[in-house]
Amino acid sequence: MTVAPQPEEAVSDKPWERIHELLAEEDSVGLTQLVESFTSEDDRRALSRLSNEDQARLVTLLHHDVAAELLESLPEEQAADILEDVSSEHAASIIEAMPEDAGVDLLQEMHPEDSAAVLAEMDDPVEADRLRTLASYAWDSAGGLMSDAFASVPDESTVGQVLQELSSGAEEYSDMDVQYVYTVAADGSLTGVLRLRDLVLTPPGRPVSSRMIRNPASVSVSEPLESLVKIFEEHSYIGLPVVDENGRLAGVVSAHAVQEAASDHLAEEYLVSQGIVGGEELRSMPLLTRCKRRLAWLTPNIALNLFSVTIIGMFESTLASAIVLAKFLPMVSDMSGCSGNQAVAVSIRELTLGLIRPADYWRIISKEGMLGMINGFVLGTLVGIIASFWGILSGGQFNPWLGLVIGSALAVNTILSVVLGGLIPLILKRMKADPALASSPILTTCTDMCGFFLVLSLAGRIIERLS
Amino acid sequence: MTVAPQPEEAVSDKPWERIHELLAEEDSVGLTQLVESFTSEDDRRALSRLSNEDQARLVTLLHHDVAAELLESLPEEQAADILEDVSSEHAASIIEAMPEDAGVDLLQEMHPEDSAAVLAEMDDPVEADRLRTLASYAWDSAGGLMSDAFASVPDESTVGQVLQELSSGAEEYSDMDVQYVYTVAADGSLTGVLRLRDLVLTPPGRPVSSRMIRNPASVSVSEPLESLVKIFEEHSYIGLPVVDENGRLAGVVSAHAVQEAASDHLAEEYLVSQGIVGGEELRSMPLLTRCKRRLAWLTPNIALNLFSVTIIGMFESTLASAIVLAKFLPMVSDMSGCSGNQAVAVSIRELTLGLIRPADYWRIISKEGMLGMINGFVLGTLVGIIASFWGILSGGQFNPWLGLVIGSALAVNTILSVVLGGLIPLILKRMKADPALASSPILTTCTDMCGFFLVLSLAGRIIERLS
Repeated sequence: MTVAPQPEEAVSDKPWERIHELLAEEDSVGLTQLVESFTSEDDRRALSRLSNEDQARLVTLLHHDVAAELLESLPEEQAADILEDVSSEHAASIIEAMPEDAGVDLLQEMHPEDSAAVLAEMDDPVEADRLRTLASYAWDSAGGLMSDAFASVPDESTVGQVLQELSSGAEEYSDMDVQYVYTVAADGSLTGVLRLRDLVLTPPGRPVSSRMIRNPASVSVSEPLESLVKIFEEHSYIGLPVVDENGRLAGVVSAHAVQEAASDHLAEEYLVSQGIVGGEELRSMPLLTRCKRRLAWLTPNIALNLFSVTIIGMFESTLASAIVLAKFLPMVSDMSGCSGNQAVAVSIRELTLGLIRPADYWRIISKEGMLGMINGFVLGTLVGIIASFWGILSGGQFNPWLGLVIGSALAVNTILSVVLGGLIPLILKRMKADPALASSPILTTCTDMCGFFLVLSLAGRIIERLS
Repeated sequence: MTVAPQPEEAVSDKPWERIHELLAEEDSVGLTQLVESFTSEDDRRALSRLSNEDQARLVTLLHHDVAAELLESLPEEQAADILEDVSSEHAASIIEAMPEDAGVDLLQEMHPEDSAAVLAEMDDPVEADRLRTLASYAWDSAGGLMSDAFASVPDESTVGQVLQELSSGAEEYSDMDVQYVYTVAADGSLTGVLRLRDLVLTPPGRPVSSRMIRNPASVSVSEPLESLVKIFEEHSYIGLPVVDENGRLAGVVSAHAVQEAASDHLAEEYLVSQGIVGGEELRSMPLLTRCKRRLAWLTPNIALNLFSVTIIGMFESTLASAIVLAKFLPMVSDMSGCSGNQAVAVSIRELTLGLIRPADYWRIISKEGMLGMINGFVLGTLVGIIASFWGILSGGQFNPWLGLVIGSALAVNTILSVVLGGLIPLILKRMKADPALASSPILTTCTDMCGFFLVLSLAGRIIERLS
């Protein structure tokens, strides 16, 4: 059976259906043509629609150059998952077909056993060694972010020799944006940098040493992302040379790569703050992996919630005498949680921007305390008025005492919530824990407990006016 | 009275205290020296510690070049706030001392009346007109992100003339990273692009038209950030020329500027998702501004919470007969909200990555529905067991019926929460609303209502076993 060619719009609309058909026929050529016609967004959507087995079969059937391009266009985590399901031999030839830094990123993202197996299958053992070293650097360090796309020349060359080298290596350099040429000593250590535009205007016979900038700024392979962001923020470098433990030039880290990593980090932080442990989930991942990761954050939350259950239990008789209170407990909990989470978010942002340090407790207490008093007053008054009149709406009576209890508990609890919400990220940061992950559950537990305690203990004092 | 010079560590530790002293003496020279000695992180922390009046006084007392550098190192929103408090004349000279794109960013961030007043005070009316045009582009469009730091030459030049132009304009070009030279026709329209490294290897007498790449890729000033991100993701351009409505070369947008804007956008989205309307709050902002912005999100939340109050009210008699249920209502609300927010975050991320489109409802329903069944079963079972045994811990009895009610309500509500959480961002996106801002409150309202309804209506059916 042959399948009639699909009309253009059908391909761009639901490309994964066409992939299914071609996979069923193991039509390598057809798949390669189809995938080559995709834009990268098509790629990603189409791949997400395939089962994990089909993704692996697709990548196995494609020409390794096309497979490499396809995987490069996917989110790294998804590409690494697919590669793990492909034979090591196949995976090795795909990694070899990629630009070095893209390959390294995937190797870093794979399980260590899988990436070791892939490296062992590579044709060129020297290149495999090089990739192994590069993959050993943390993804968020200069070593992990650097690229090997740079030009370096011995510092004893002449200008003419450098231009000759650049011109003869034109093909090799065509993928890179050469604007700086680095000069190295005989032992490979970085000695200077040449700007391409300076070379252009210098007589070819002059030694590069007469034009090079000596002792150029450089960073070590272990420089962390956080400090790279600061360096590129304070200087307008396009890129910086990276040197290894022995001072040898190892690569170049670009402002763009640093900015991209910072952006990835922010995206991860957002997901972590919403309870996605690890900072990455795509719906194309296996169901049980997704379940397990989400449960890893939800299950401890059960334990935290038991504190609130206990507090409410302590006041069971109060609640029994004034059942109307039970209606407003979830509202006090929700409103306080929201106020506190606003303060959490501002603290996390200010920590990232370097506007506050983990020790700046007093600043948070005063700034959030003031805000909490105003917002607590506004919210407490509004909710208090609503609670006072709520009885009338539900066929009962106007009860200002109920409004007083709910409103004042919410007002006080708002102050506590914003101060705590502001402080918790700083405390977690100081304890080297991840503020994005743990701030919100800890905050909610505290504010729920305080909120329920305030409502029910205040109510207990004037219980005869509420029942 | 003269103040003794502060020891080094005191300056770096609490620079704002020293600024206070120098401000009191109106010591312009001292302030300039102190600020020049800061790193940009010091700047930001020090400025954050000053009152708004002191920030404006400091910027007024500093030499305008130093003030310009200081403001450039601050978050844009903070810098714009400070400039609004300075006289227009002063602000104009500071903006003039900045690189054009930094100045434009601040003008865009300021209130329209303030930026108009500043532009009116500028010395050079032609430059003011140019800045006015640039500031009129949205910050997240190619026009708003482009820089004027590029080299362009008439397309009838010779290679030698171009090299001569680059060399004679060395000072002008020294701030930029020239690697492409754009060629324009007599009417200013973009006709081609020259790579610096190609020029270097071409005889000077040849016309540039023989080496230039014709009809180069370009984007319009109105190209939105979202599509710029995609373009730079699919191609490895370092920068792209930007043309205005008439096809004239207006600027160059770099991959780095696009990545930086995407990163700012993510940071804003995180704050918005936590209820910070507008996506930016720094604790250095005026107290009432901070209060108002936070309340703008909290106040509608009160209205949404009233739905849950109503649902609980409908079952007041059930609750009165089995007060133990009231203990577990906030837990059901919290756990369901957390599960749903995980799904919200994954949907927002997948929308950003282009992995799902607003119409992909069925995919979300099937993927989240499956996950909801598993997680709902796990969480429902755990919480059900705890609820069954809770009575024993608090001096009462083992009650499997309570566990059954709470556990099965949580299980069903978890399925609803994750499906709704997954769908709500898509629906909001389709309605052109901001998913980050509204998803969580809408989700919480729905899951609270459903959760309370499930617990209380199930309980009503077996009320004699619970009381």
